[in-house]
Amino acid sequence: MNTPDRTVYLDHAATTPMVPAAVEAMTAHLLDVGNPSSLHASGRKARRVVEESRETIAQALNCRPGEVVFTSGGTEADNLALKGIFWSRRAADPRRTRILSTAVEHHAVLDPLHWLATDEGADVELLPVDRQGRLDLDAFRASVERDPASVALVSVMWANNEVGTLQPVAEVVALAAEHGIPVHSDAVQALGSVPVDFAASGLDALTVTGHKVGGPYGVGALVVRREVAVTALAHGGGQERDIRSGTIDTPAIAGFAKAVELSVKQQADHAERVAALRDDLVARVVAAVPDAHLHGAALDRDSRLPGNAHLGFPDCEGDSLLMLLDARGIECSTGSACSAGVPQPSHVLLAMGCTDEAARHSLRFSLGHSSTQADVDALVEAIAPVVDRARTSRR
Amino acid sequence: MNTPDRTVYLDHAATTPMVPAAVEAMTAHLLDVGNPSSLHASGRKARRVVEESRETIAQALNCRPGEVVFTSGGTEADNLALKGIFWSRRAADPRRTRILSTAVEHHAVLDPLHWLATDEGADVELLPVDRQGRLDLDAFRASVERDPASVALVSVMWANNEVGTLQPVAEVVALAAEHGIPVHSDAVQALGSVPVDFAASGLDALTVTGHKVGGPYGVGALVVRREVAVTALAHGGGQERDIRSGTIDTPAIAGFAKAVELSVKQQADHAERVAALRDDLVARVVAAVPDAHLHGAALDRDSRLPGNAHLGFPDCEGDSLLMLLDARGIECSTGSACSAGVPQPSHVLLAMGCTDEAARHSLRFSLGHSSTQADVDALVEAIAPVVDRARTSRR
Repeated sequence: MNTPDRTVYLDHAATTPMVPAAVEAMTAHLLDVGNPSSLHASGRKARRVVEESRETIAQALNCRPGEVVFTSGGTEADNLALKGIFWSRRAADPRRTRILSTAVEHHAVLDPLHWLATDEGADVELLPVDRQGRLDLDAFRASVERDPASVALVSVMWANNEVGTLQPVAEVVALAAEHGIPVHSDAVQALGSVPVDFAASGLDALTVTGHKVGGPYGVGALVVRREVAVTALAHGGGQERDIRSGTIDTPAIAGFAKAVELSVKQQADHAERVAALRDDLVARVVAAVPDAHLHGAALDRDSRLPGNAHLGFPDCEGDSLLMLLDARGIECSTGSACSAGVPQPSHVLLAMGCTDEAARHSLRFSLGHSSTQADVDALVEAIAPVVDRARTSRR
Repeated sequence: MNTPDRTVYLDHAATTPMVPAAVEAMTAHLLDVGNPSSLHASGRKARRVVEESRETIAQALNCRPGEVVFTSGGTEADNLALKGIFWSRRAADPRRTRILSTAVEHHAVLDPLHWLATDEGADVELLPVDRQGRLDLDAFRASVERDPASVALVSVMWANNEVGTLQPVAEVVALAAEHGIPVHSDAVQALGSVPVDFAASGLDALTVTGHKVGGPYGVGALVVRREVAVTALAHGGGQERDIRSGTIDTPAIAGFAKAVELSVKQQADHAERVAALRDDLVARVVAAVPDAHLHGAALDRDSRLPGNAHLGFPDCEGDSLLMLLDARGIECSTGSACSAGVPQPSHVLLAMGCTDEAARHSLRFSLGHSSTQADVDALVEAIAPVVDRARTSRR
């Protein structure tokens, strides 16, 4: 295979490159000395950077600074929310054993839920979604109302990482609020792509992470209302109001804050720009491969993330398409990067009613801040021959 | 207060500045794109960086690459070792409820142990130490032999973070091995200061972290033998052989690996250099303040970390001394940075037999790679007037 001249990166949902301002904010502190927990001047200086970053994030997400708990990323924040709130709520009332969520959550939610069910006595209910991947609110309501007092918490993602479907978080929160049930949402994919306002959402806890918004890896946050008790997962120095111990990562937090600030500030323009590229991508790929079809919700801003295109190519293996495109320098995904290499059809597509076969012949193209018209053009040019070749090799 | 011209940083045990080579290794990858779990070329390139870093660390620590599990730092690695091994060992045999450790561990060990005792039914025994802070091996042997089959695991730090005392890890491992009991050691303070050889140690699990060896914050590792089952704490994408889920932080891992490599390569020279500075510091501070006295083990390489000086100043408050020195640009600590601001006498000093009063009148000076003779000179010049002033203000 020839090495392609240029990489066409269409996998921003897996991770998006850092923006220069975030790199700058982070590297400005790499050579600093001083643990933010130390009492001397260097420590206090580092602490100021951390607290200013916390304020920046609070302003961007419309929460209070004290509600931002820094973590090592989205997975840790999800684990903390689910296990920490479950344990606290059950400790306060042992009847609270149920956790309601959806069948299309990210593995960072599904796998902790599975562990809570197998090892910690939780009754986990993964509620169904429709063909667009949107939570079935009637099923949700029925599940809550069957026995509200037994529900420890609810977790519903803001936007799906595979197909980009936006979930009815407001409706979920309103229904849960009738019964005083706390609601968590993983907004890792949503932040910077759609408006995310913590206070307005009514949520009790929200997960965000750096590397999906142009910030660094290794840092994220659980935004959590101070009234919500959260049992710690990591015990130690008592950092982050004892909810999350571990030396505070000043440079990464500074980079994260800058990325969050910019991604929120630029969200509307960004969404418009990538949605136009995405719409063009979908239209022209479907024109080039007539039996290709879109999975998930309609291409409008209230239903779907602006940068997400998830397409089915009948009679192809998604993995083969991925590798053939990769050989031409075009990078995409068959689903969640976290599950890459696992030869199983996507649980998201199966929950949406796809057959095993349909789930396997799919690709996710996700656009981000560095995406260009040239990227879309390159994919459109490559897709028909690549699909042909994948079909030939399959016969 | 006047701002001092130059900061004299004598708090390397809290955190030490990044070395330029680690900054370079890290920043070289900040603008890369590609999640190491992605299958395309950018993902595979990131994965190569991660796996080469893993090999570098394995070579430096003399372990196998597959034994290196990357975490967000030392606290997470300690939590993972203690909870993960406890849960696995007890699941395999419910009689195994005991965890043996020492009274002088870091809070990243003590606090998870406390949680395991209060919330998970563990019987935690914190074994006594002598006046130097060294584990009482007779007490340890007696505790093991009282009922070896009930011991889930043993955790003994390699070197103490407050007073620098080296623990008899080899003896602990030998004794535990007689009964097939796994041993974990927190080597966060030891790495780069004394030789740390995982294979030769006979340990089952070892904690290391980046920011104590000239690498970045937010990254560390649990080195753990593949034969040792470890229940995961963070569930999700299944990274790090399913022991530690979460997107892999390529740039931080690259910086961490470079720092570990260099700190191990330079360990002998580093130890000699900082020990000479430290010996000079202790001798001249005691000369300047005649009733000042050293806490902990003798100043020899087999007993104590080379960069650690922990001194008692009778009739002073450690916190006052810290602030008065800080006003002159000299930065040190009263104990663990993680517990800074907590107005309690150090559990380490109390376990060593200090009175409350003696525990409170103490300061830790810790030297590192950027320490110079001028730093020592500055402290020696300042210490007597500062102690005088602290004593005056107390009367």
